[in-house]
Amino acid sequence: MYKFERLQNFTYEVLVKIGTPEHMAKEAAEVLVSADLRGIDSHGVARLIGYIRLWEAGRGNPAPQISICLETPSTATVDGDSGLGLVVAPEAMRIAMRKATQCGSGWVSVKNSNHFGIAGYHAMMALEEDMIGIALTNASPLVAPTFSTERLLGTNPIAMAIPSGQEAPFVADMATTTAANGKLEILQRKQEEAPLGWIQGKDGQDVTDPLGVKNGGALLPLGGDREHGSHKGYALGSIVDILSAVLSGANYGPWAPPFVSFLPLAEDPVGEGLGHFFGAMRIDAFRPASEFKDHMDNWLRRFRSASTKSGHERVLVPGDPESELELVRRVEGIPLLDPVIKDLESIAVKFDLSL
Amino acid sequence: MYKFERLQNFTYEVLVKIGTPEHMAKEAAEVLVSADLRGIDSHGVARLIGYIRLWEAGRGNPAPQISICLETPSTATVDGDSGLGLVVAPEAMRIAMRKATQCGSGWVSVKNSNHFGIAGYHAMMALEEDMIGIALTNASPLVAPTFSTERLLGTNPIAMAIPSGQEAPFVADMATTTAANGKLEILQRKQEEAPLGWIQGKDGQDVTDPLGVKNGGALLPLGGDREHGSHKGYALGSIVDILSAVLSGANYGPWAPPFVSFLPLAEDPVGEGLGHFFGAMRIDAFRPASEFKDHMDNWLRRFRSASTKSGHERVLVPGDPESELELVRRVEGIPLLDPVIKDLESIAVKFDLSL
Repeated sequence: MYKFERLQNFTYEVLVKIGTPEHMAKEAAEVLVSADLRGIDSHGVARLIGYIRLWEAGRGNPAPQISICLETPSTATVDGDSGLGLVVAPEAMRIAMRKATQCGSGWVSVKNSNHFGIAGYHAMMALEEDMIGIALTNASPLVAPTFSTERLLGTNPIAMAIPSGQEAPFVADMATTTAANGKLEILQRKQEEAPLGWIQGKDGQDVTDPLGVKNGGALLPLGGDREHGSHKGYALGSIVDILSAVLSGANYGPWAPPFVSFLPLAEDPVGEGLGHFFGAMRIDAFRPASEFKDHMDNWLRRFRSASTKSGHERVLVPGDPESELELVRRVEGIPLLDPVIKDLESIAVKFDLSL
Repeated sequence: MYKFERLQNFTYEVLVKIGTPEHMAKEAAEVLVSADLRGIDSHGVARLIGYIRLWEAGRGNPAPQISICLETPSTATVDGDSGLGLVVAPEAMRIAMRKATQCGSGWVSVKNSNHFGIAGYHAMMALEEDMIGIALTNASPLVAPTFSTERLLGTNPIAMAIPSGQEAPFVADMATTTAANGKLEILQRKQEEAPLGWIQGKDGQDVTDPLGVKNGGALLPLGGDREHGSHKGYALGSIVDILSAVLSGANYGPWAPPFVSFLPLAEDPVGEGLGHFFGAMRIDAFRPASEFKDHMDNWLRRFRSASTKSGHERVLVPGDPESELELVRRVEGIPLLDPVIKDLESIAVKFDLSL
């Protein structure tokens, strides 16, 4: 078990070593380790080595000059200056929130960025200011549209955080695929089969081998197949891609730059870097905040106390498993897998740090 | 086959007969028949009798005074004055678009409304002004959250329309369930079984009988079961419910008023009527519109020309089946089922009109 402060501090020190200004490194470390705290282990310190490799490949600017290219009172397009998304995203979210303070809502499309950790972190930034927060990003192409054999979309997550009063808030943070890539990686490690409807093979056939995607197949959009609504998951992933990248001027669809540094970038880029999209809406731009929160508490209690199917103890609200795990992990620490510990130790050696 | 002008004119005349002002009746008829044109037959003139019954039950105000309760430069909450959603929704969407013209984006949450036809119509209003349009609504509770046996959500659709240049635009319009209720109704008429993953029985068990929902079961959120991501469909339906109804002050979750007039309203309402949510974002609030449209055309062509799995001719973009059918039906007319024709004829007799 590793205390989250220890992992956060280690991440901070590594980011400073590669040239990240201290205030940016502090925030980026918080974003990264929040994934481990919330149980989304695939997006936490396990990815630190990936970010380092991006930097080594010249594809991550540790000290970006983040700038606004174009803006209106309620919108902006932001250039991330090739920065790590861990740094660019919170800054862009703050711009959205500032606009919401000024005119009710703020919407920011970002180009020239990179992978930004868990979407939920950025959306949740809005909660403290009684705003609804939204965070989207496009990602490495791994997902085939319905009826296609090509990987044209990323797992393109949607996160939305909604404030409440006494109850724990509503926090959705989900890939627009049946299963996130991290879940496949777990099956690969355990050498277990994937359920039908998660992935397809090279020719679009049903596949349960979790290595199917690596072998030329693809992840499937939420819904799995046409009969179960995969065209809807495909539509959602497309919306995320368009708002994040076509709107901002980033690379979209199959042109989205891969996270892993050993895969080449597209030879004919259609934009700059990866794209994100952030939104913030002030609750009291619609309704007095206290009134909204009372009703939101009522909503949350009604759903949390709903009758269950036999075999299930309770009905969960989006965000419940993550916020409950966070409470445990803040006290008990974060379990890391051996390969992740080895990666972190190799980083420690490289930068003359101790884990 | 019925010419769409004939159905539109008939709908217009009926709405005027029940007291709808002419300009509202004209627009409402266009909204309703656009569903038939686009092949979403469940939401078209087949529902006219349902709207009439709502009016007869005193639950639809034909001449609503639609008003803004609270606003900021980019947001508003609108009171639909118990109007038919067919009338309230386009007016609320225009408010969102006006705000987008003024400050980049506009977001409108609506209370005290009623069912509004197809969400796609309202989202598509934005296309003519080079805006991205968004339309959401909550609806009669028919959907069980993951692990629950209770119907706490409606089929709560999400529609988003995105402008393009030469290519047909991207128009997503989808229930956040595996299958829309209209598809179940088709199976009921044909007396065919539903695929697993569409509905559950009274105790949450797997059910393929299309009457399962009527017999106390529920529609399932997009994903179908937990292993295939139903918690994501449940999260999406919840987001639609909260933005449409908790934010505006309408009835949310299981309190949402049923469309069918013979079902009673909740005895302990938590708000007023049904809720909607509309958004409009000016493209040039982010990027020059011509640049965006060129890239959007490129996006659309790339997806439409993607390689297919064997047995499939081409990859579709959201909105393609509907816009293609609309071209056909504008020329050839709209096929109506016998029970629908009978309903329309009974309406004609009641109001001394000819179909």
